[in-house]
Amino acid sequence: MQQKRTELSELGEFGLINRLKTYLPAQNYHANTITGIGDDCAVLDNGGDEYTLITTDILAENIHFDLAYTPLVHLGYKAVIVNLSDIVAMNGTPQQITVSVALSNRFSVEAIEEFYKGIKIACENYKVDLVGGDTTSSKSGFFISITAIGKVKKDKIVYRNGAKIGDIVCVTGDLGGAFLGLKLLSWEKEVFLANPEMQPELTGKEYPLQRQLRPEARLDMVLEWGNLGVKPTAMLDISDGLASEILHICEQSQVGAFILEENLPIDTEVFNTAVEHNLPPITCAMNGGEDYELLCTFSPQDFDKIRKKMPDLTAIGVIKEKELGAILQTNSKEQVKITAQGWKHF
Amino acid sequence: MQQKRTELSELGEFGLINRLKTYLPAQNYHANTITGIGDDCAVLDNGGDEYTLITTDILAENIHFDLAYTPLVHLGYKAVIVNLSDIVAMNGTPQQITVSVALSNRFSVEAIEEFYKGIKIACENYKVDLVGGDTTSSKSGFFISITAIGKVKKDKIVYRNGAKIGDIVCVTGDLGGAFLGLKLLSWEKEVFLANPEMQPELTGKEYPLQRQLRPEARLDMVLEWGNLGVKPTAMLDISDGLASEILHICEQSQVGAFILEENLPIDTEVFNTAVEHNLPPITCAMNGGEDYELLCTFSPQDFDKIRKKMPDLTAIGVIKEKELGAILQTNSKEQVKITAQGWKHF
Repeated sequence: MQQKRTELSELGEFGLINRLKTYLPAQNYHANTITGIGDDCAVLDNGGDEYTLITTDILAENIHFDLAYTPLVHLGYKAVIVNLSDIVAMNGTPQQITVSVALSNRFSVEAIEEFYKGIKIACENYKVDLVGGDTTSSKSGFFISITAIGKVKKDKIVYRNGAKIGDIVCVTGDLGGAFLGLKLLSWEKEVFLANPEMQPELTGKEYPLQRQLRPEARLDMVLEWGNLGVKPTAMLDISDGLASEILHICEQSQVGAFILEENLPIDTEVFNTAVEHNLPPITCAMNGGEDYELLCTFSPQDFDKIRKKMPDLTAIGVIKEKELGAILQTNSKEQVKITAQGWKHF
Repeated sequence: MQQKRTELSELGEFGLINRLKTYLPAQNYHANTITGIGDDCAVLDNGGDEYTLITTDILAENIHFDLAYTPLVHLGYKAVIVNLSDIVAMNGTPQQITVSVALSNRFSVEAIEEFYKGIKIACENYKVDLVGGDTTSSKSGFFISITAIGKVKKDKIVYRNGAKIGDIVCVTGDLGGAFLGLKLLSWEKEVFLANPEMQPELTGKEYPLQRQLRPEARLDMVLEWGNLGVKPTAMLDISDGLASEILHICEQSQVGAFILEENLPIDTEVFNTAVEHNLPPITCAMNGGEDYELLCTFSPQDFDKIRKKMPDLTAIGVIKEKELGAILQTNSKEQVKITAQGWKHF
């Protein structure tokens, strides 16, 4: 009997996750399992007034990072950050991580120490305890799997599904820099491969490079609006690109969204460098990914309380009826449907 | 300036872990971080009368498993078990897992579903909720990273460092089967590669194969001695081989151990098949690994309470003064020093 073979490329990442989700329905053997798959973190209730948040990510060499232009110390830092960012995206505070690596013997002990130096700096910057992990070899390639554990007061937790019609859609920081940084690095790699004598020309492009190589988790923002007594109605972190994340909020909150291109925060250096390379800045911002800023929605009342006090928070649109879908109004007043796809690695 | 390059093979797994441990001292930003690196699990105190246990493992293709002879459904099952076993080894009960995979596009969607079917069966058998994870691609190879979360009453937790002089050293189940199963499978693979027409001759060898392909976590034992009102003084699970685990208990408890070869529980099928292949059964039991049985020590008083009631628990020796070291008395009454090394993958 011929067995059916479906290629991964036919489904893509989101398609695969959906298929596995149907295949393996959320079980609930334990009353303390509050939320499983589908948000930035799993949520566990261990009693008391706080939830425990757990998130995990796997990073694969030449898929998520290229060691040709990624210093190992930055890689260690970023590998931690992408996980802390998921805790922050539930309005939580990260507290512990575990770090597992599989790596081939082409790495020296000193190289691995560089990687762990980056892990250590991230732990210090975010006051996170490294509590465990696993170290093993691989036949080829470097794989990193980090699990982050955090806390959030039960009445402060923010899911993806709480956005209401009329809520203000906001982002922290600015967008598109990490993607542009990646482009700059891969262009330089091509130049270098073509002619190893060429020196990289990256002066004046420090900001997008930093955004790519050494992102931060916006714990500062969560603490800031917490101190101002408000919390978002829905939130996630921008790892796959703004467009993709807006669609997640719309789908899970069962709402639509109206976003204004003119409001999207793009750093001047990022904007100019993108234009210089014939890359539309809006594409960097909407589809770039890896900025690890927060996409969040606030009730109009809550937004009023913080709009003047949080300069690093930008209103980019408003939540609308589901029927409207997710719409971007461009600077030329054209209204386009927001579309996005997951990583098309396969 | 020449940068120093130390090869991973110079250090080995334990050497690397020790070097990284010195490099990254245990921090303690959070009062709820009870124990970090150095035991089977990290231990977190979230208030109440229970600790939260967290453990994580990374499995790499052609290092930890060979898909030439590992059915994906068994691989999924085993990947969960090795993590649940670490929770059990702290005298705990596993409750949740996250599952992350990185895999190349040589896998079909149906193959991945087989893997997740194994995950699902393990979750059902052990009443564990699957609460999250990550799915990504890899340039080559299949990598699995699972994190397990569990609970243990604070007064029931068992570390590696609690063994006292005079305690009885015990193991659950029997030893060496998983290693022998692996040998049988790799021999069959060689035969098959030499002549693909050859049919595998594995009849009558089901037990060691099952031990290798579909191990279990001994949650049943933890529940059983819990019901009998006792707990071990020290414990870990046998993943790297009995010798290695005995040395861990001795080092962390600052004691010695005297083990009797004649007491080591080895299944008859395993014993006979090993002898048939000129493999000393004692080597399978001492250095084989992957049995996922428990090595535990009990006070003489506690051991008296359970010795007649737990037929699947075998006393194999006694804890002695540190100065004695770890000694195996062979069947010919020779006393040999127990030595072991971690996985020498690099």
